[in-house]
Amino acid sequence: MDPRHAVLFEPIQIGPKTLPNRFYQVPHASGFGVEKPHTQAAFRAIKAEGGWGGVCVDYTSISLECEEAPAVSALFWDDADAQALGITAEAVHAHGGLAGIELFHGGAHSENGQSRAIRVAPTQYRSHPIWGGLAKEMDADDISRIQREWVEAAVRARDVGFDIIYVYGAHGYLLSQFFSTYLNQRTDTYGGSLENRGRFWIETLEAVRAAVGADCAIATRIPVNGRDGLPGIETDDMLQLISIASPLVDLFDVNVGVWPEDSGTSRYYPEGHERPWTDRVREATDKPVVGVGRYTSADLMAEIVSTRALDIIGAARPAIADPFLPTKIREGRLDEIRECTGSNVCIAREETYNHVACIQNATAGEEYRRGWHPELFTKAANADRAVLVVGAGPAGLECAVILGKRGFDAVHLVDAAPEIGGRLRWVRTLPTLGDWGRVTDYRAIQLDKLDNVEFIPGRRFTAADVLDYGAQIVIVATGSSWRGDGVQPEHDDIEGASLAHVMTPEQVVLEGKRPAPGSVVVYDADGYYVGPGIAELLAGEGYDAHLVTPFGVVSPQSDASLEGDFLRQHLHNRGVTAHRGVTLTRVAESGVTGFDEFGEAWSLPCTGVVLVTQQQSEDTLYRELLADPLALEAAGVEAVYAIGDAVAPRPISEAVFDGHRLAREIDSEDPMRPTPYQRERISL
Amino acid sequence: MDPRHAVLFEPIQIGPKTLPNRFYQVPHASGFGVEKPHTQAAFRAIKAEGGWGGVCVDYTSISLECEEAPAVSALFWDDADAQALGITAEAVHAHGGLAGIELFHGGAHSENGQSRAIRVAPTQYRSHPIWGGLAKEMDADDISRIQREWVEAAVRARDVGFDIIYVYGAHGYLLSQFFSTYLNQRTDTYGGSLENRGRFWIETLEAVRAAVGADCAIATRIPVNGRDGLPGIETDDMLQLISIASPLVDLFDVNVGVWPEDSGTSRYYPEGHERPWTDRVREATDKPVVGVGRYTSADLMAEIVSTRALDIIGAARPAIADPFLPTKIREGRLDEIRECTGSNVCIAREETYNHVACIQNATAGEEYRRGWHPELFTKAANADRAVLVVGAGPAGLECAVILGKRGFDAVHLVDAAPEIGGRLRWVRTLPTLGDWGRVTDYRAIQLDKLDNVEFIPGRRFTAADVLDYGAQIVIVATGSSWRGDGVQPEHDDIEGASLAHVMTPEQVVLEGKRPAPGSVVVYDADGYYVGPGIAELLAGEGYDAHLVTPFGVVSPQSDASLEGDFLRQHLHNRGVTAHRGVTLTRVAESGVTGFDEFGEAWSLPCTGVVLVTQQQSEDTLYRELLADPLALEAAGVEAVYAIGDAVAPRPISEAVFDGHRLAREIDSEDPMRPTPYQRERISL
Repeated sequence: MDPRHAVLFEPIQIGPKTLPNRFYQVPHASGFGVEKPHTQAAFRAIKAEGGWGGVCVDYTSISLECEEAPAVSALFWDDADAQALGITAEAVHAHGGLAGIELFHGGAHSENGQSRAIRVAPTQYRSHPIWGGLAKEMDADDISRIQREWVEAAVRARDVGFDIIYVYGAHGYLLSQFFSTYLNQRTDTYGGSLENRGRFWIETLEAVRAAVGADCAIATRIPVNGRDGLPGIETDDMLQLISIASPLVDLFDVNVGVWPEDSGTSRYYPEGHERPWTDRVREATDKPVVGVGRYTSADLMAEIVSTRALDIIGAARPAIADPFLPTKIREGRLDEIRECTGSNVCIAREETYNHVACIQNATAGEEYRRGWHPELFTKAANADRAVLVVGAGPAGLECAVILGKRGFDAVHLVDAAPEIGGRLRWVRTLPTLGDWGRVTDYRAIQLDKLDNVEFIPGRRFTAADVLDYGAQIVIVATGSSWRGDGVQPEHDDIEGASLAHVMTPEQVVLEGKRPAPGSVVVYDADGYYVGPGIAELLAGEGYDAHLVTPFGVVSPQSDASLEGDFLRQHLHNRGVTAHRGVTLTRVAESGVTGFDEFGEAWSLPCTGVVLVTQQQSEDTLYRELLADPLALEAAGVEAVYAIGDAVAPRPISEAVFDGHRLAREIDSEDPMRPTPYQRERISL
Repeated sequence: MDPRHAVLFEPIQIGPKTLPNRFYQVPHASGFGVEKPHTQAAFRAIKAEGGWGGVCVDYTSISLECEEAPAVSALFWDDADAQALGITAEAVHAHGGLAGIELFHGGAHSENGQSRAIRVAPTQYRSHPIWGGLAKEMDADDISRIQREWVEAAVRARDVGFDIIYVYGAHGYLLSQFFSTYLNQRTDTYGGSLENRGRFWIETLEAVRAAVGADCAIATRIPVNGRDGLPGIETDDMLQLISIASPLVDLFDVNVGVWPEDSGTSRYYPEGHERPWTDRVREATDKPVVGVGRYTSADLMAEIVSTRALDIIGAARPAIADPFLPTKIREGRLDEIRECTGSNVCIAREETYNHVACIQNATAGEEYRRGWHPELFTKAANADRAVLVVGAGPAGLECAVILGKRGFDAVHLVDAAPEIGGRLRWVRTLPTLGDWGRVTDYRAIQLDKLDNVEFIPGRRFTAADVLDYGAQIVIVATGSSWRGDGVQPEHDDIEGASLAHVMTPEQVVLEGKRPAPGSVVVYDADGYYVGPGIAELLAGEGYDAHLVTPFGVVSPQSDASLEGDFLRQHLHNRGVTAHRGVTLTRVAESGVTGFDEFGEAWSLPCTGVVLVTQQQSEDTLYRELLADPLALEAAGVEAVYAIGDAVAPRPISEAVFDGHRLAREIDSEDPMRPTPYQRERISL
């Protein structure tokens, strides 16, 4: 270990508990809740195994009137729920970690899709509307009842082994709603002055501390406003609340604002972007403070802890991307850290009501159901076979690396390009997308370290080349490309797509093709990052850039990753003009024509058009190989597989997952068919 | 029974099985899948008890590469899944019904959020994109494998007791994808001619029939195109396919198009709107045919069956709204049918990934978890108490009716208005919303039948009136109203909201208030039906109507109920101009001002403004009563409860649910707090 990083491995006392080091996986949603208790336990335990001294479960509801369906929050309504989450506490303990539980009441923000319960809020007026429905204004009985429920949940949590018990107030939930001058319009002792608005929070802390404070560390999660905080909450006020709460709290878990500022993506927020606010918490308390900021740099973490800006490095996304980040720092293997890209695939999964997944770490969420460990690999039964992987994009790279780790004698990874990366070679050069390159960079280092995996650049393999090569197993990972004919979902080709001033994203970014100066139309029927990226690129070069999209909003997929509002404002600020609800059907020399959302004619003059409509698999090699089984046999090729976009163009995270899966199951009965995964079942 | 309806109760042979009558609950999603097997069983069994001769479960996936997470389709991947769904078959049999299972492969439309499996399609080109990801083009192995999986699932289904086994091809899923000239671009024997495009469907039918046809009825669900069918599918072609399939099929389950045409709402589709297409199926086959059309009229159903336009009346939504619809027809109690409103609350719940619910039937989905039966009620322990329900809107009406059914000696329902209905009095008069009035109409008839419930119109009760009245239990159901001050979610009041040309929805519809002739702005910060309804009303009266909304789309909540696209087109056709992404902050005599999605100034001149921003509870009476416990005691009032919008403004379905719940739990320990419901748990 680099001695500069030793400070990160000093234990620290939090109330009656000792955190073994300064690494802390803050509470975050997983999609497992109490519905998948063993999956939850395995997902959290791997972080304790990887060196995170504190590991927390999901936000955990204390009250029947608060749940997040269709999203999955953990429920903690009765002893059966407590037993279900207790196995996570036990699993974390087995690796020497402290287990935390974020007891939670969403107030007006509770979705209540399962319970159909009426939401509660400090004030009905301005309460967060869900499906047009507002909340009940809490009366005195509601306040004391919720505090009682919090205590009951805390006792349950202690009894099943949790070490750190939260009074969760961040992210705009009930305690913050009370503290907000905007959302709390009460005229009783719980509204008005700062003390009054903080009263519910402080009383809850007192009650929970009185009940379990002797046995457990009491944590509170608290937002220090930030750039886009909850309306009616100011940083100075929060610092004052922290100061008042300080004697009652063993651990302050701090962040800024609400989503999407907290959990901001790398496109719009750098590592440590929360520091201007969270660093100020020290003004208000001398108690241990944990904070987040998508930290993956050991030097920065050590500096933060050394200066006591924070006492503990919190992480959600970096711990998903690399559960073994602390161990790797401790062992001086900094180059092996699988750094979070800040692409928010994890959050996009949650926002679309699916369980956690990661663009960098294919094993995230698969610890129980597929039995995958992020760092341990079994030797493949067919490791003596020579493997040729054709294509070094996300799928091929991941597959080759994992095959290397599974102990194959020889894995050759080839690519037509002079370097690895596949589509990421150009995607990472688009404005704001640089950190996505970490998908490539991590694997480049792994390739360097694996003696049994060799990368051969600059060779475009034909079927004949493959047959000649001498490998017994061939894996085709030739990726995909953007169609040039304008074929788009649910509509026909675009007439005139073959004109000279019409181009694909690859032509623009990789080949440097450009329209004549003037107005350029980027037609985005894809709806994620490519269209906006190209539009911003061209706007930056002086084009009058128009992003035309058939969707009702620009880049709808960016909403799931919490980027939508930023992206649209960002494009606007960069001078990109958006046209929504427009389907293009024809390109002419002078411009484009199509129809609007009501089917009426629409047109725009322009000097060039970039078509971001649909991708197509580059699967010629795969098809040619499969077409001649006799040739394969003659060449000694025992198996040909395809992975990633060569099978079906999908997001980068899915290509990585697919490459990983094939490598994990390369010695299964039929590697092209995923092995059934383990599901948790209701007892009949 | 009316003898004209006797035809509906004639048994009919479907293959080796006898359907006991002509009522058939077609397969539809419930949100229960195999994750909640007991909830599923209870939800389906109640329909068999209510007289539906055939009852089907959810769409049920046959393959690991097809699942609908985050939506819940049933899975049928192994024997444990089969056991889980088998209890539904058993429960349906217990009431003399036949149990059907819709075996399903979604192909390119499979969401695969849980499995992360690669989707398959006849052709990658134009395959349905999900998260920008396309599907794998199926090879010959995929085709034979999926047919094998279908057979394996069919055998499993037979073995756990299902009577009717589907080869499900409707709603744009895999079999339809193969049949579509647009989606299927194959050049092998599964693409090209009608016979080729139908080959996969026919072969699958043959294989399933060979495996289980001697024991089970073989059904196929097939779309007959319609107005907005899947691209590349024509009615005449489908009729030809039906004709080819006819010898292999025991039951054709037919519908039109894809969502949102199938399951079209009452706002835009009348009862029986599918008939122009589905009536033609008889041209192609003499086998039994079941079809849907939101049928609730016994006369129409009898006419359809008598003429053999269809042999069997299918229903999803009408069976959710009234599981006892067949029994009520059989017993001649037509006026007691709880008619589906066609509001698609059930589908909005599904589209937002929640389990089924119903605006008319509060017990839908609650049969297992709360033990609620739609037609049976226990006598309340406190039935000797006199009850006063103040307010005859959706919540108060439902509560009074259910209290009546629970055997209370005397329930008095009072309202300030001259008639029952509450907010529905004016909502049902808005353009396209007439069928929502069935919520009121059903309950009006129930009130007539219940001797122990009395409605007293035209009395606005003060607290003093309540205290004088002599009831021991008081239930406040005084509803909500639209704010006149322009307070809106996440933004402040609107300056100038008190000007004379600014009005609320109630003022427009109930009081007939109108702006001066010219341009009117309807400001919709609510996002569902009220804003568009008012805008259409005023446009119809000759105003130049502008719908201004802060949302990125007009009426985002209508997307969940499958109405969004229709609603926006409809408003456009009616001359309403939409302005999206605009927040209003100020009204002046001459017009409105605010800011657009990028925070830039926005304005529009107008002669009048209708504010549809936010509702507020009308809870003065409730607060006054609670404020004086001594007065309550002196008056002999033992309990005061509030329900519905008086507690928290919410959608009509939730108000009905709330009124129902209180009546069900009126004799619980604390009726204002919902009793915990039963959850199905993972065994630890």
